[in-house]
Order: sequence, then structure tokens, then C-alpha cells
Amino acid sequence: MNRGQHLNLALLHHPVLNRNREVIGSAVTNLDIHDIARMARTYGVARYFISTPWEEQHRLVEELLAHWQNGHGSQSNPARKEALSRVRLAFDLEEVISEVEREEKQSPLVIATSAIRRENTVTWNRLRRQLDSHRQVLLVFGTAHGLAPEVLERADYSLPPIAGGSDYNHLSVRSAAAIIVDRLLGSYNTG
Amino acid sequence: MNRGQHLNLALLHHPVLNRNREVIGSAVTNLDIHDIARMARTYGVARYFISTPWEEQHRLVEELLAHWQNGHGSQSNPARKEALSRVRLAFDLEEVISEVEREEKQSPLVIATSAIRRENTVTWNRLRRQLDSHRQVLLVFGTAHGLAPEVLERADYSLPPIAGGSDYNHLSVRSAAAIIVDRLLGSYNTG
Repeated sequence: MNRGQHLNLALLHHPVLNRNREVIGSAVTNLDIHDIARMARTYGVARYFISTPWEEQHRLVEELLAHWQNGHGSQSNPARKEALSRVRLAFDLEEVISEVEREEKQSPLVIATSAIRRENTVTWNRLRRQLDSHRQVLLVFGTAHGLAPEVLERADYSLPPIAGGSDYNHLSVRSAAAIIVDRLLGSYNTG
Repeated sequence: MNRGQHLNLALLHHPVLNRNREVIGSAVTNLDIHDIARMARTYGVARYFISTPWEEQHRLVEELLAHWQNGHGSQSNPARKEALSRVRLAFDLEEVISEVEREEKQSPLVIATSAIRRENTVTWNRLRRQLDSHRQVLLVFGTAHGLAPEVLERADYSLPPIAGGSDYNHLSVRSAAAIIVDRLLGSYNTG
């Protein structure tokens, strides 16, 4: 059994925070799509949603995906085609949740990720056990300076911040997503 | 004691492989510098070397670092300034090794990273123990399609490939570096 088949990722571009902790929307970036899609495919993650409220940004992502699905990229790099085939678009978090629900006949446990420790923290072990018991889990990541309070409040639980052992915690969302998925799905001790 | 103070990272742009497994040199990319520097700083890694044999590429990286160290970027984003302050430049792997040796009065254990399992594999646990016993360790990462055979042969050991539980293994070097450093230095069970 692959634990990853019960895991879903969502990268939110709105509502997120800027440096001054104001709620904003951010632009989709090419490398967030690629890096996280490649990582998700490597770990057998079920779905990776790019969420943005803007039609124009949807069209941009669709063009990028088409290049790798059917265009030049699909021939030059079949591994990339495979990774990007799991990328989905959504307009907001509610749509992501409904999609998982519709396909899995089960409402996913919504888990926020944050660089700051919150009260409703779930442990890594507990979340691994949820996945093992076939509970659908949706990990929500924020672009820019992280998820807006309304998303943190909407989530069922939060993951603890990644403790690097220093007072500094400014991981890119690409690094954070890789580390979090490895902690949930990776086999540490098989090496 | 922070285990990270004994860990060093090197990102090699030459000699690496292209898709056809020919030895090439690759161009430095902005995001490899930023993502890995932020991650290295978060985990308290001692040094992060960008290695490329080309003077022109050194100048490019120096300009980028200057922007964040002394220019506009240093005021607008002090956290980024701090992360990038640990970035070093080198012309090749031998220079990286000499630098660590010179500053630590100890030759580092050179560990290659690869998506393919090799004979001289060291386990995660063993490498963690080396760091705990204050052995300087240098992790070597390849850009493009990975390190050339001569680098793999030069290394004392290789890390096992990151097992994602699927047959697919095409992580970006940014994701791989984050996962590997977390496995060596992260506190998994404090959450």
C-alpha cells in the first residue's frame, strides 16, 4: 500500500500574506508548478492542485501544462510530462476540497502548513497514521509569506513548523513541501 | 550542539551529465542559489558552495550576492541577506574540499548524492553519527541530470537515492537537497 495515494497537495495563491502580513494574491510561478509536481510524482501523491482565483492565471498554467502534455516538451522530456499530468487547477480552497470529496467519496482532513506554531497542531506520527488508515488528507501550502488567517482557521489541523534547529525559518514553499511530504511518506531508514 | 555546523553543501555545475549521460557544464540558476541558501540557513549548515569553472559565472553570482548583501535587497529583505551570507564560490570540487580543510583543520568526508543506488552507500544513520562525532561532511549535489562518474568515484561514499515509494525518481536538485538535509539534521518527532 502506498500511503501517498491518500495525500493531496494544494498550493494557494490567494488568500496569502505579504511581508507586512496584509492579505494579497500572488502570481503563479513556473518553478512552483514543476518542482512540486516532480516531488509529488516521486512520492506517489494523489493530486496536486494549483489554486488561484484569476482566469488569466488559469490560462497561463493551462498553456504551460499543454506544452508538456502535448507540445514539444512531451517528446523531449516524458518524465516531466508524467509529473505534470497530476497537476490540477482550482479557483479556491473550497473547490479543491469538493474535488477530492467528489472523487474519493470522503471529505479530506484539511491540514494547514505554517512557519509559526499554532494551537491546533497535529503531530507527524498522527498524520502518518491517518494516511495509513486510508483517510484522505489535503495539505495546504501558501505562496508569498504564507497562508492568510482565514485559511488557517478553515483547516482542521496545522502541521508543526519545520524545526531546523536554528532561530531562522525562511524556507521556500518548494523546499517546505518537499520536506513535509518526505516526513509523511518517505522511508528514512531503508538506506 | 547543532549537528549542522559540521555539514557543508556543494552544488556542482561541472562535471555533470545531460539527458544523454554526456559530461557537460550547466549554467548557474538564481533559484538554486536562493532556495538552497535559505534551507541551509534554516538548518544551520556551515557552508554552501556554488561550484562552476567559469569566471563569467562567478561574476554573475557575485553580482547577485552583492545585490542582497549591500544593495537594495539587503534593506528590503534582511532574512534573505542572512541566508545568502553563507554562500561561497568555488571553481571545482577540489577547491571546495581545500576550503573546508583549511578552515576546519580536517579533511571532510565527501558524500555524493545520486538518484541511482551505488556500491559505496553510507546509511542515513551512519552519516548522522559521523556529524554527531564532529566529523566534517561535504554533501555534493549535481545540477542538470546529476554528477558525472568522476565525481562519484572521487567521493568517499554515496547517499542512498531518496525512496519515494514509486518507480519515479526525478526530484529537482532543490527538492533533493531539502529532503536530504532534513533527513540528516531535522527533528522529526518533536512535533
